[in-house]
Amino acid sequence: MIDMVGLDGDDTLWHSESHFVVTEDALADLLSPYAEPTDLRLRMLATERRNLALFGYGVKGFTLSMIETAIEVSNGQVSVAEIQAIIDAGKGLLAHPVELLDGVTEAIDALSGRVRLVVITKGDLFHQESKAAASGLVDRVEGIEIVAEKDIATYRRILARHAVAPDRFLMVGNSVRSDILPVLELGSHAAHVPYHVTWEVEVVEPPDVGHERFRALTSLRDLPALLDELGA
Amino acid sequence: MIDMVGLDGDDTLWHSESHFVVTEDALADLLSPYAEPTDLRLRMLATERRNLALFGYGVKGFTLSMIETAIEVSNGQVSVAEIQAIIDAGKGLLAHPVELLDGVTEAIDALSGRVRLVVITKGDLFHQESKAAASGLVDRVEGIEIVAEKDIATYRRILARHAVAPDRFLMVGNSVRSDILPVLELGSHAAHVPYHVTWEVEVVEPPDVGHERFRALTSLRDLPALLDELGA
Repeated sequence: MIDMVGLDGDDTLWHSESHFVVTEDALADLLSPYAEPTDLRLRMLATERRNLALFGYGVKGFTLSMIETAIEVSNGQVSVAEIQAIIDAGKGLLAHPVELLDGVTEAIDALSGRVRLVVITKGDLFHQESKAAASGLVDRVEGIEIVAEKDIATYRRILARHAVAPDRFLMVGNSVRSDILPVLELGSHAAHVPYHVTWEVEVVEPPDVGHERFRALTSLRDLPALLDELGA
Repeated sequence: MIDMVGLDGDDTLWHSESHFVVTEDALADLLSPYAEPTDLRLRMLATERRNLALFGYGVKGFTLSMIETAIEVSNGQVSVAEIQAIIDAGKGLLAHPVELLDGVTEAIDALSGRVRLVVITKGDLFHQESKAAASGLVDRVEGIEIVAEKDIATYRRILARHAVAPDRFLMVGNSVRSDILPVLELGSHAAHVPYHVTWEVEVVEPPDVGHERFRALTSLRDLPALLDELGA
């Protein structure tokens, strides 16, 4: 029996990584005088990984990493106007309208009143709150949990706060690393709904499909049927 | 009677604004070929205010605002090396060791077991969690609430989550705007402990000292005596 369903935000409820990809493509264009696109992407990923322990997740750290990468790949030849263009691209990401994925509204309508719903999303507090507010979903869920990292300790804290036993919790999201593996390790249920692009840092091997508490779904539209099966 | 005390983080439990001031002084030195220090500070403040609705609070947004200000005041003449120096200064702020204010440990020792304690701090989730962890205070309080903005709705949500009535809550902090006024408006108690510098954006008129639920303290060391008086 499932008492509470946790829904990931970025790339599960609303589009996110696809906007980052568009921004990185624009960065590759901007810096094409200095670096090949493939090399640029590798250098950018290396910068992001290096800065993660200091910046955490989110657009502002991503923007600072883009600037550092631009300085690096150009050997300091990037122009100040190009750096301002990078900052503007970061601001464009922050100001981007929230676009819900197909089927999200219908899935949440179908689950409302049937099971407790919380959004559990990772990243920048201010930006995630803005996106949650703009999503129009805030009033239809019990809470929005914005966390710095989705690890076992984080999920344990959220379940304790909501007084839900691990085996009565189902997490749904697109990131195997953040939404699936720690949740299964805690003894909860997890459903993976893939997004068409995944940030390299989040890519890990999925769990064995034979895992009894793991399901691979193709869309959030499959969620009501999964709850029929698990009980809710 | 007070059941729960909320403690602000930055500039109440640990030093923060003084580190920003040092960084802004270094920025003024770095950009002295382009702008007078006084003018630079005004331009920086204007950039920060303009970006606040998009960036929220915290070091990463502050760093991006420093870069934008440098580009502006130099009419695009700032060098890429100077921009990298600004990013490095931002990283220095993020990596800065946490320094507790005088008397904090003693005050928390004196309150432990006598009243419920939560840290309520505003800003970047990742950086605030890092600072809270490094402060060594996490195990001595009931919770750490990191919020994007300290307004009435935020305090109401925190009190509901901890099941505390507004008139049994005391908030303690250095910012009149964030720690005092919304708390008094909610019907709770508030104690102001000034810090020697205040970010211009946080500066507002303090409440009437005659307000029956407001106290001006000189240090966190005065807190146990205030709880004797209010009851806890």
